[in-house]
Amino acid sequence: MIQMKKITSNHILSNLAVLMATVIFLFGCGKKEEAAGDYLSVAKARGLSPADIERAVKTFVPPGKTDDYVIFASGGHSGQMHLIGVPSMRLLKTIPVFTPDSWSGYGFGNKGVEDMLGEGSKNRATGLRWGDTHHPALSETDGDYDGRFCYINDRGNGRIAMIDLRDFKTKQIYSIPNVQTSHGGVFVTPNTEYAHISAKVPKANAFSETPIGVTKNDHLTKYKDLYRGVSSFLKIDQTTGRFIEAESFQIELPPYNQDLADAGKDASMGWAFINSYNTEMAPGGNKDGGVSIETGASKNDFDFMHIINWQKAAEVAKAGKVEVHNGIRVISLKTAVEEGILYLAPEPKSPHGVDVCPNGNYIVVSGKLDPHSTIYGMDLIKKAIAEKNFEGNDPYGIPILRYKAIVAGQVELGAGPLHTQFDDKGYAYTSLFLENAVVKWSLGAPYFIGDKAWKVADKIQTSYNIGHLTLACGDQRHPQGKYCIAMNKWSIDRHPKVGTLLPQNFQLIDVTGEKMQLLADMPIGFGEPHYAQTAPMKLFEKSLQVYPLGTDPMTMQAAPDAIKKAEDARVERHGNVVDAYVSVIRSTFTPDIIEVKKGDNVRIHLTNIEQTPDATHGFAIPEYNVVLSLDAGETAVAEFTATKPGSFSMYCTEFCSALHLEMQGWILVN
Amino acid sequence: MIQMKKITSNHILSNLAVLMATVIFLFGCGKKEEAAGDYLSVAKARGLSPADIERAVKTFVPPGKTDDYVIFASGGHSGQMHLIGVPSMRLLKTIPVFTPDSWSGYGFGNKGVEDMLGEGSKNRATGLRWGDTHHPALSETDGDYDGRFCYINDRGNGRIAMIDLRDFKTKQIYSIPNVQTSHGGVFVTPNTEYAHISAKVPKANAFSETPIGVTKNDHLTKYKDLYRGVSSFLKIDQTTGRFIEAESFQIELPPYNQDLADAGKDASMGWAFINSYNTEMAPGGNKDGGVSIETGASKNDFDFMHIINWQKAAEVAKAGKVEVHNGIRVISLKTAVEEGILYLAPEPKSPHGVDVCPNGNYIVVSGKLDPHSTIYGMDLIKKAIAEKNFEGNDPYGIPILRYKAIVAGQVELGAGPLHTQFDDKGYAYTSLFLENAVVKWSLGAPYFIGDKAWKVADKIQTSYNIGHLTLACGDQRHPQGKYCIAMNKWSIDRHPKVGTLLPQNFQLIDVTGEKMQLLADMPIGFGEPHYAQTAPMKLFEKSLQVYPLGTDPMTMQAAPDAIKKAEDARVERHGNVVDAYVSVIRSTFTPDIIEVKKGDNVRIHLTNIEQTPDATHGFAIPEYNVVLSLDAGETAVAEFTATKPGSFSMYCTEFCSALHLEMQGWILVN
Repeated sequence: MIQMKKITSNHILSNLAVLMATVIFLFGCGKKEEAAGDYLSVAKARGLSPADIERAVKTFVPPGKTDDYVIFASGGHSGQMHLIGVPSMRLLKTIPVFTPDSWSGYGFGNKGVEDMLGEGSKNRATGLRWGDTHHPALSETDGDYDGRFCYINDRGNGRIAMIDLRDFKTKQIYSIPNVQTSHGGVFVTPNTEYAHISAKVPKANAFSETPIGVTKNDHLTKYKDLYRGVSSFLKIDQTTGRFIEAESFQIELPPYNQDLADAGKDASMGWAFINSYNTEMAPGGNKDGGVSIETGASKNDFDFMHIINWQKAAEVAKAGKVEVHNGIRVISLKTAVEEGILYLAPEPKSPHGVDVCPNGNYIVVSGKLDPHSTIYGMDLIKKAIAEKNFEGNDPYGIPILRYKAIVAGQVELGAGPLHTQFDDKGYAYTSLFLENAVVKWSLGAPYFIGDKAWKVADKIQTSYNIGHLTLACGDQRHPQGKYCIAMNKWSIDRHPKVGTLLPQNFQLIDVTGEKMQLLADMPIGFGEPHYAQTAPMKLFEKSLQVYPLGTDPMTMQAAPDAIKKAEDARVERHGNVVDAYVSVIRSTFTPDIIEVKKGDNVRIHLTNIEQTPDATHGFAIPEYNVVLSLDAGETAVAEFTATKPGSFSMYCTEFCSALHLEMQGWILVN
Repeated sequence: MIQMKKITSNHILSNLAVLMATVIFLFGCGKKEEAAGDYLSVAKARGLSPADIERAVKTFVPPGKTDDYVIFASGGHSGQMHLIGVPSMRLLKTIPVFTPDSWSGYGFGNKGVEDMLGEGSKNRATGLRWGDTHHPALSETDGDYDGRFCYINDRGNGRIAMIDLRDFKTKQIYSIPNVQTSHGGVFVTPNTEYAHISAKVPKANAFSETPIGVTKNDHLTKYKDLYRGVSSFLKIDQTTGRFIEAESFQIELPPYNQDLADAGKDASMGWAFINSYNTEMAPGGNKDGGVSIETGASKNDFDFMHIINWQKAAEVAKAGKVEVHNGIRVISLKTAVEEGILYLAPEPKSPHGVDVCPNGNYIVVSGKLDPHSTIYGMDLIKKAIAEKNFEGNDPYGIPILRYKAIVAGQVELGAGPLHTQFDDKGYAYTSLFLENAVVKWSLGAPYFIGDKAWKVADKIQTSYNIGHLTLACGDQRHPQGKYCIAMNKWSIDRHPKVGTLLPQNFQLIDVTGEKMQLLADMPIGFGEPHYAQTAPMKLFEKSLQVYPLGTDPMTMQAAPDAIKKAEDARVERHGNVVDAYVSVIRSTFTPDIIEVKKGDNVRIHLTNIEQTPDATHGFAIPEYNVVLSLDAGETAVAEFTATKPGSFSMYCTEFCSALHLEMQGWILVN
């Protein structure tokens, strides 16, 4: 299954060991060469081939050294973001986003975090404590990652979060009006003007302010009227990275399942592209006389790429040609068509990936039921729009661009092509889900011309069911190539048996040479990453290590309730509210006894008064579901209601010093 | 900081490359040696020394190959268990234990899991959704790991969980009566008769059935009367691994902070050893005229090791010489002393680790404020008990064994010795927290005699603040040595900058040679592991890959509500309860439309009818905080109340097939 670059038999390895011994003998340089002899004998003992040694040397990061790149991998239904070092493929950190995480004290009584999670559940059926992260979008300047913020969607619940890359913490969860779920559709525009997310929305519930129920009969017979899609352009505050609802807008779309999307750049600057499937609008009903969605949604030979002029849409919204639904401006389908904001392009059946090439002219679409990638030219799209070269309109009146007029090339890649990334040499890399492979192929001019254009250059086997893939800066204006990470969904037989729930499997591939080389497997037993972005580590060299003393991370401002020295620690009572101002430093809480009454609302204002990097302290109250984590300089509030009388042995959850066990105190509830 | 085994300059490396080239030239064997040439030039380009190459070769596990050992690492306040492969140091999987995890559908509407989490919150102030896992205890047969179950405590909330190693899932969380928190104190007896946990307990609240409050004044003045420690022996069902409360018992202890503990074996079979600190019984009160616990708890020159004859205690409990408090049998302090169950041994101030050597005769205690390890002999302890060779009694009447009569050896190890593990050659390895090092030292007879006994053999630098350490089977009757993993608490400057909350840092050390060799660093950015156990991977080769069709993992029995084929799928209404029986298979739910009324209690009985390993499906309902994960053959119930009207697009959260996006359905609430 693995493409081997070298001959790998043990025979050769032992020959090599003999050779080394010969060298040592011939040249008499004794001790120095033992090093080489050592690792060859170790390799032999461990059954490693010369190719394996090469792999080891290509991926090993020595103790104390750091990786060159970091993968921002979504966590799927873990709801989190996972940071992975490349080439070592070590998990550097998990950042909690939609799902509480007690290690980082995220969602267990930290008032700032609880308020954010509450805001993120606005207009949902219940308080939400999980998400399904799919598509990270690192902020960009001029089409390249700039290391400021990272956006990521919750495919499960129609939300999007912002992670602040100053301290790598989630600062906002935005429950997007009129959106219930969103699988794909996430990108930022090239200067992070907007973060985009699209979704199908039950119109009857969402566009109307008062949700109403949908009967099975209505669902089965009136699907085309009941539902709609939306494309959401969420305005970004350039200083804080936060979403500004008042300056955001949505565009009403047909009730196709809008899916993956990408922003135009350079040649396609100002435009956006969104795939869709189920243009059949199959409603399901496999026990109600109908067919399953799987069957119903796979009938058409072509689905539609949505082509959106978002710069023009922003002008239209600014001009007030909008309806307001649930607090956000919506450009109606009718207006979008009239204003020339929205076009459709036929794309071979059930497309999955849509990816814009580095110079912005090519839009690569891969349909999982078609062995080709279809490449659209932005120059051709613009020409067809200018010439009104349409095949007709869809049922909602949207003009459909003439397929043959806008396709720049089509390349047969293999079975089940999904997603495409790019390197710095003009090659595209596409995942083949059904074939379990990554295929490297050439684009057309300006990268390649004549015979070299639109050709498969190499293919490498992966294991198994590869979904997305990511190359260094592989979706940016300036890709860096070097490594490709195959994000495989199944891992059967690749990793040891540790239960019925198997990890996913990342595979690191060296793409520096003509032929791709598989380097390493990484089990992902903590989430199901979908999309990922790989950025240079050096972008984050200046990220914060310590907060200025008394900082509230949620605002990145000085917290008004911070105390800066133990002498200021105190407990105040205001009616049945107890405010305790507590200093936290190795290895003491001050005060270390907090006495309250049963029924009190207790707010413990904690400040970690350390200024040493890594001097994180925790704060936990047994039985009360309260645990916070406070980095050096951080201020946060632990809030709870004292429902049960007794002595509760509060403690620091971190092994912060030799006397960490003694970093305790008492909450006395009487 | 790193001990280098070899000379490592680039100069030598380039000499070596020249040498290789010379070999290739001299012997004219061309192609074969390119492999070696390749990795040497790669190593040079990447700045790897020959020692680094050796490290790479010692740790690299080629794609498709598996590790030799697996670390069962506690996750600290992540509340989870982390499985890490050795020597690759790859995170194989995170098993959720005390904290919900949406990836594995643990705690988000899965009725079986919710019931377990609810049971685990019994008698706590509120429903608990996090834990602080500290000390795993793999089940044992005859003193060696047997691969059946793993127990782990919640240091934060006085609980213990059982993970079933047939499918690597948590099956029980036991909220231990009379226990509020438990830092250490976890072990299983050599045939897993009992899982042990100890803790300090507010006596006023716990031993009495009706919790009462404690005033600050009482706390400061009556600490010795108000509080108690307990040692809990929880009986284990040998078939299911579950705790049997009716056959469990506790032993009342003084209100010292009972901490780390270990079970005797062989020479000390039937005995248990528990460290303690704060024998000063310092109550805190640093803003109330007192001193901090940190200061108050560090006054005495000696604290006490508790020596417990648990086999005798079991007989005493069986004979009914117990009180029953909150449903569990408790042997009072008085009875424990009278029956000869409980003794104390002086141990140098503020001890941390207590570890029994492979043959059971030596009990190694390390005090973090003393540079020595103190080694007690079980033969000497038994003799002192038989001869009533006591120094006196503690304030609670417990006899204190004469220190000089029971110490077999004392070895000066360095600054801040904490925990000790053992290899297969008679050596002990102790972590030095303050010195940031692992020290290898020799035990006495039968391992070493005369000059070789009780001597430091080697020391290696670690980074930084090492807590526990783990060797392969390093706490068992038959240790395997080979690798030592240093579990370091700080990682500053060892890993790339990814925010103010830094990962912890594991370091893999080769202990096969005379000198220890540092091999690799592993960032742990997802928890703060405390203790860990390292077991051979082959112990788990026969673990389940697929459940027999229709299995409820919580019982490991056939689920009565399982359906085994899509034809049996149906929706039934019973008053305002809707029971939907849904089959799950690539890529369809049947039925795919479930219509309910607002206010209904909805129970969706899901069976994954696949029998292919790795064919896991998810089940999520947008907005309702419901997500389940169903492995092949598994049956589970998603339960929720339909509070909000509308159409909710339920879906499979796994990328389970090319048409995974189409694996959707609708919950219609009207």
